Amino acid sequence: MAVYTHLGAEEMAALLADFDVGTLISAKGIAEGVSNSNWLLETSGPQGAGPTRYILTMYEFRIELEDLPFFLSLLDHLAAKGCPVPRTIHDRDGRLFRMRGDKALALIEFLPGVSVSAPTDAQTHAVGAELARMHLASADFASSRANGMGLAEWQRLAEACGEAGLASIDPALAEMVARELPRLAADWPSGLPSAVIHADLFPDNALVLGDRISGLIDFYFACNDLCAYDLAITHLAWCFDEATGAFRPELSRAMIEGYETLRPLAPDERAALPLLAQGAAMRFMMSRAYDWLNTPADALVTRRDPMQIARRMTFYRDNPGIFA
Amino acid sequence: MAVYTHLGAEEMAALLADFDVGTLISAKGIAEGVSNSNWLLETSGPQGAGPTRYILTMYEFRIELEDLPFFLSLLDHLAAKGCPVPRTIHDRDGRLFRMRGDKALALIEFLPGVSVSAPTDAQTHAVGAELARMHLASADFASSRANGMGLAEWQRLAEACGEAGLASIDPALAEMVARELPRLAADWPSGLPSAVIHADLFPDNALVLGDRISGLIDFYFACNDLCAYDLAITHLAWCFDEATGAFRPELSRAMIEGYETLRPLAPDERAALPLLAQGAAMRFMMSRAYDWLNTPADALVTRRDPMQIARRMTFYRDNPGIFA
Repeated sequence: MAVYTHLGAEEMAALLADFDVGTLISAKGIAEGVSNSNWLLETSGPQGAGPTRYILTMYEFRIELEDLPFFLSLLDHLAAKGCPVPRTIHDRDGRLFRMRGDKALALIEFLPGVSVSAPTDAQTHAVGAELARMHLASADFASSRANGMGLAEWQRLAEACGEAGLASIDPALAEMVARELPRLAADWPSGLPSAVIHADLFPDNALVLGDRISGLIDFYFACNDLCAYDLAITHLAWCFDEATGAFRPELSRAMIEGYETLRPLAPDERAALPLLAQGAAMRFMMSRAYDWLNTPADALVTRRDPMQIARRMTFYRDNPGIFA
Repeated sequence: MAVYTHLGAEEMAALLADFDVGTLISAKGIAEGVSNSNWLLETSGPQGAGPTRYILTMYEFRIELEDLPFFLSLLDHLAAKGCPVPRTIHDRDGRLFRMRGDKALALIEFLPGVSVSAPTDAQTHAVGAELARMHLASADFASSRANGMGLAEWQRLAEACGEAGLASIDPALAEMVARELPRLAADWPSGLPSAVIHADLFPDNALVLGDRISGLIDFYFACNDLCAYDLAITHLAWCFDEATGAFRPELSRAMIEGYETLRPLAPDERAALPLLAQGAAMRFMMSRAYDWLNTPADALVTRRDPMQIARRMTFYRDNPGIFA
């Protein structure tokens, strides 16, 4: 939600000279990203093309430099397979990113579209299909990356929060973590199909134009993990009313139907969905709880309520039939 | 430097339906403005036009609602006279802005260009000329607005900071204010030509494309005051090296020459420039000193050093000949 580093027009122009993108026409710092600075640029475009827009990202912290090649080459791989993801613009030497001091800079394609907060059935159907397309497209992607936000990390975050910390947010949260985390660890499925998953596909991270998904963005949690777990995360993120918290069965049906237009679920994947959805809820509950306890109340960053996700977890536990 | 209010795509689309700008294609919150939230939008464009970009501004605080008609109609007036300022997009009822709860929303034209931190002679010549064009173009503008950042306000800010407060920044600052503020008040010229002035034309508030000024932006200090005082502010803002603080005589010459290509200075205006430039320095010294003392050191807003301006003030006092 900020631009951490000032990058003057002269510096930006010098930087762009290393890419075949023409000269700088416009640059606006954009209020996106929590661990990096982003600019929306317009240039005169590569030779022969007209004015073209790009997103320039400066990686400030958190993202390990060693993961950048994975994220940026994944975009290239998926775009080449027809997924609506921004292509990485390579520099004149073919590099995916450049260093500026101890910070990395990457240039990616700009995609049109807006993020909705109350998705329609058609948009939810479309995002299901695009998720399946991504899972299929990543099958022959050469690199891999472990999920840094998996079960072991939920346990680590739960310990870091402490039972008292969780109870200070809500006594029900502490109880739920104590009860459900061991159960999830014991029952977590193995042997289901895996792929490179997005792992954070909230409506914020999708761009839509009408009913069409024009972009999937923000792949900084992408990793190798279960396809059905990614579907469960996306279900958690899209199929509840943001304002009331109510489950939206028509969105749920639309998402799974959309997914299955390209990649039908195997019976064991479908059977695992209730548990995977509870795991998805645990993952975001724990990261939000940790941020809640470790973000000053007056910080400019918006703290997100872990209890919003806790209620979805309870819903999933009590209603396994929605995935049948 | 922030987007204070979340405006969902659905709300934005509903809002745009009141303007003849087509449908929403893209929206990015941009990291500009300290007292308002801004989005860079792309729409399918007015009937017959292609995709078009706009800046949507939500006025959050500080700017009095009663001043908005002045600022927004000034843009229209200046744009109609060929000044490179963004036009205000009127809604279907002809209104300059719309209310959303207690906040005002306005849509203005997007202008290409970038802000430079080390302007060239040619750019500085061009900004001088555009400043003169603005002064001439505003002659028949129907509205007027008093300068809220004039001498009386410098005195109020000096009192609010207090001698001890100023000395806590730098003992030399307290001395300078005690010595120079009464002198400026006693000697401040009257009877010089006035116009609607920009009053804050730092390089941040100009967009350039090569040597051309493609935009003058951020008119929220615009008011009726002396033309030569506006030239003095712009001189203060452009004619010193940002890194070293050194006076750049070639930029100074370029700016005044550029200004005089469209509006030659009268002898009494030229004679007043040394004092007006010291006044310009006092104005920014006082607002920066006040912000310095009233902004927590750990705030995300960058505090700007009043002593940078104090050194320019000393330079102007000791070198009146640069304007001869």
